[in-house]
Amino acid sequence: MKPKAIFFDIDNTLYDTAKFAERARRNAINAMREAGLKASEEEAYKALLKVIAKRTSNYDKHFDEMVRNLGQKPDPHIIAAGIGAYHNTKSSILPFPEVKSAILELRDSGYKLYVASEGDSLKQWDKLIRLGLDHLFHDVFVTEDVGRKKSKDFYAAITRKLKLDPKKCIMVGDSEEKDSTPAGEAGMRTVLVTHDGKGRGNADFVIRDLSELKKTLVKLE
Amino acid sequence: MKPKAIFFDIDNTLYDTAKFAERARRNAINAMREAGLKASEEEAYKALLKVIAKRTSNYDKHFDEMVRNLGQKPDPHIIAAGIGAYHNTKSSILPFPEVKSAILELRDSGYKLYVASEGDSLKQWDKLIRLGLDHLFHDVFVTEDVGRKKSKDFYAAITRKLKLDPKKCIMVGDSEEKDSTPAGEAGMRTVLVTHDGKGRGNADFVIRDLSELKKTLVKLE
Repeated sequence: MKPKAIFFDIDNTLYDTAKFAERARRNAINAMREAGLKASEEEAYKALLKVIAKRTSNYDKHFDEMVRNLGQKPDPHIIAAGIGAYHNTKSSILPFPEVKSAILELRDSGYKLYVASEGDSLKQWDKLIRLGLDHLFHDVFVTEDVGRKKSKDFYAAITRKLKLDPKKCIMVGDSEEKDSTPAGEAGMRTVLVTHDGKGRGNADFVIRDLSELKKTLVKLE
Repeated sequence: MKPKAIFFDIDNTLYDTAKFAERARRNAINAMREAGLKASEEEAYKALLKVIAKRTSNYDKHFDEMVRNLGQKPDPHIIAAGIGAYHNTKSSILPFPEVKSAILELRDSGYKLYVASEGDSLKQWDKLIRLGLDHLFHDVFVTEDVGRKKSKDFYAAITRKLKLDPKKCIMVGDSEEKDSTPAGEAGMRTVLVTHDGKGRGNADFVIRDLSELKKTLVKLE
């Protein structure tokens, strides 16, 4: 059965979230050093990772706590420099190199393309805009708007809203837990994107990156 | 008596706050139009100014309300585009063209240079960093850290902290209410920066921009 619609996760599927997070943190640290923080990049980076491990990434005083843990006062010059550089880097994210051409080619082939993403609606839209991808999908579904976290129910709700047979829908993402498993439970076909070629889990197909997606879809027809 | 220390206001003294605010709002509107807002730049700009007049500038739903007032739904694509473009513009502020050279020349002449600014400490430091001015002052005083709004007491507190005779201190700013009047009450000499050459109030001197400051100081000696 020829699939009709393809749903894409954002983080680690359309862009390298981990790489940009590290880059943003290191740029923040170097800006803080320029503003007076006395520590090497590596010392400060390790101290920051410890704070993140302790407080999770949803905490707004990472830099203050890191500076204090390095034995210094969280001077507003240092903190403001870190926050500014962090956001500057977060503003200049890029998609994985194969993403735009793969998406445009799939659109040309007649597929309907959607985003299925977990998180805050404005934040996920902000990422799509900064990635230059905001106009390339036929619609965007974010868990905040749908009212459900990524789960069987979330995927069932969005295919129902689009009046699509889940069996004709494909979910493409990097997470077994949030993408392939619940989408599979909702009756969708699933493709896991691994980047390193490892892992398979229970997805129907595993690809390294989106450049392999089109030839994988042929196997489904 | 030769003055020793010069204090500078930030907003509308070191950079053109009003110009960058308008630019940020217009860039936000054009990004929202690109994301689907149906309105001309001028229609939307007028609608935005109305919302700001009603809600003041400290309100985080300006764009939502503007879009609704234009008869449309505040789609997260549109709102995220507006917020992103607004912050991008706010990130690329520049000092008035004469500011850096005037400051460096005054430093070379032996003056101690300080910032005396009203607002949130991290926000004012963020501006100094983005303006490229964060290393150019000997110290920075923000009302949030001092614990007083711009008033006679604020200026008295910072000169006392620096162990300076207020009579040997000069406050340079664009506002009579927040700069020249209270600094004058605290015993400082005052210079009002007008940009348009209008107004005088009760400041000791009026200059158009900081390029006129050095020759004004000679009159004080």
